Amino acid sequence: MCELLGMSANTPTDIVFSFSGLMQRGGKTGPHSDGWGIAFYEGKGLREFRDPSPSCDSEIANLVCRYPIKSNIVVSHIRQANAGRIALENTHPFTRELWGKYWTFAHNGQLKGIKKYPLKHYFPVGTTDSEHAFCWIMDQIRERFPRPPKRTSTIQKFIQKLCDQLWELGVFNMLLTDSRYLFCYCSTRLNWITRRAPFDQASLKDADITIDFAKETTENDVVTVVATDPLTIDETWQAMNPGEMVMFDQGELCK
Amino acid sequence: MCELLGMSANTPTDIVFSFSGLMQRGGKTGPHSDGWGIAFYEGKGLREFRDPSPSCDSEIANLVCRYPIKSNIVVSHIRQANAGRIALENTHPFTRELWGKYWTFAHNGQLKGIKKYPLKHYFPVGTTDSEHAFCWIMDQIRERFPRPPKRTSTIQKFIQKLCDQLWELGVFNMLLTDSRYLFCYCSTRLNWITRRAPFDQASLKDADITIDFAKETTENDVVTVVATDPLTIDETWQAMNPGEMVMFDQGELCK
Repeated sequence: MCELLGMSANTPTDIVFSFSGLMQRGGKTGPHSDGWGIAFYEGKGLREFRDPSPSCDSEIANLVCRYPIKSNIVVSHIRQANAGRIALENTHPFTRELWGKYWTFAHNGQLKGIKKYPLKHYFPVGTTDSEHAFCWIMDQIRERFPRPPKRTSTIQKFIQKLCDQLWELGVFNMLLTDSRYLFCYCSTRLNWITRRAPFDQASLKDADITIDFAKETTENDVVTVVATDPLTIDETWQAMNPGEMVMFDQGELCK
Repeated sequence: MCELLGMSANTPTDIVFSFSGLMQRGGKTGPHSDGWGIAFYEGKGLREFRDPSPSCDSEIANLVCRYPIKSNIVVSHIRQANAGRIALENTHPFTRELWGKYWTFAHNGQLKGIKKYPLKHYFPVGTTDSEHAFCWIMDQIRERFPRPPKRTSTIQKFIQKLCDQLWELGVFNMLLTDSRYLFCYCSTRLNWITRRAPFDQASLKDADITIDFAKETTENDVVTVVATDPLTIDETWQAMNPGEMVMFDQGELCK
């Protein structure tokens, strides 16, 4: 199993607090020591950090913890390798361009037989089942929608259908973003929380860190964090159901 | 004008020495203060760092200087914006996937009218003429070679032809790599140097740093560095001619 972390916010927000908890699971409080990666969106622009070494003692992960990168969307992943050797090209998240936007994907689980799914436009660089699944998703979206559909609900439903199909191959918890929306699919385990005014304080489960969000935010901020397991001990996270997909736009759940 | 820096090596090599010189030009010894980026290949895998703030006082650039990432191919760029506002999505280098490989591109110059060139497969995320040119190059390669041609010289000639065509639109100095070969095209200014045994010492032009390569290398190492202007004061760099393209494979010039 790997650990996923995502964020969607209505104002550029740093993820230092959540990431500080997550990175402990990369070899310290968790067994996920086969690399990690994080993608930050700033508008349409993308900044990625990736390391095939354990996050708990990665110099780059330390930088990400120290250096507050403000972002509207974040997708992060720490890896416990099952399919595909430990290598930079097998380190999530993965990114491809479609419609002049960077799409980013991270996956937790295993997909039996995914490599038999034919690809046309996008091809994996590494050898993971996850990257193959991502290329297949992107291929399907591109084939079906050479241009972006007018309604977001159209693409939302289409992605949900693709995820349902992939779920049949095994375990498929994923985060996917097109730089605006954050799509989250749960096949076994995924939790989320939306923080908004009045903000309270929260304590990490994996590190001795407490934050007072009231001091870090303005009253208009809406920030959703998605993670494999809840990252804090004193907040109520929403557990997703198997086969459920949720989509966030600027921190808000889209219904 | 922007500054380009590339490396091709037959063994994973860090670029700390050269990058330490280059980053000074981002706002300190040079005027290129509108962002910078660097892409490191480790095999087929790619690690990128990108920052729209000046490299001379970027925390991430400091990390890259301190933390020796060993790589076979590097493409880096510091930017003085002319076309496209200062933003993360306009920060070189740019990357796209073709044939299951990450291709990376950085450009110095301006290309008048490039945005009229139609695109089919790859679309720019930002607004620079450079990214449009890159998407057009990738489009042309993909159209002409749906699969990689058998001979490298075939693709080399094809890329040279595309570059010649782009040069007609203005200034076009570029670095391009498919994760194995480093293609370098000069329209006005590009210099390179190949270092091999017996190694000597060298001093940076832009910072008070001297390195003794003999201590840092083994006698089999072959490392080529390409830069807009020579980065050292005590070595002989090869100045490229306008319209010239060179290609390096594992540090060696391909003829």
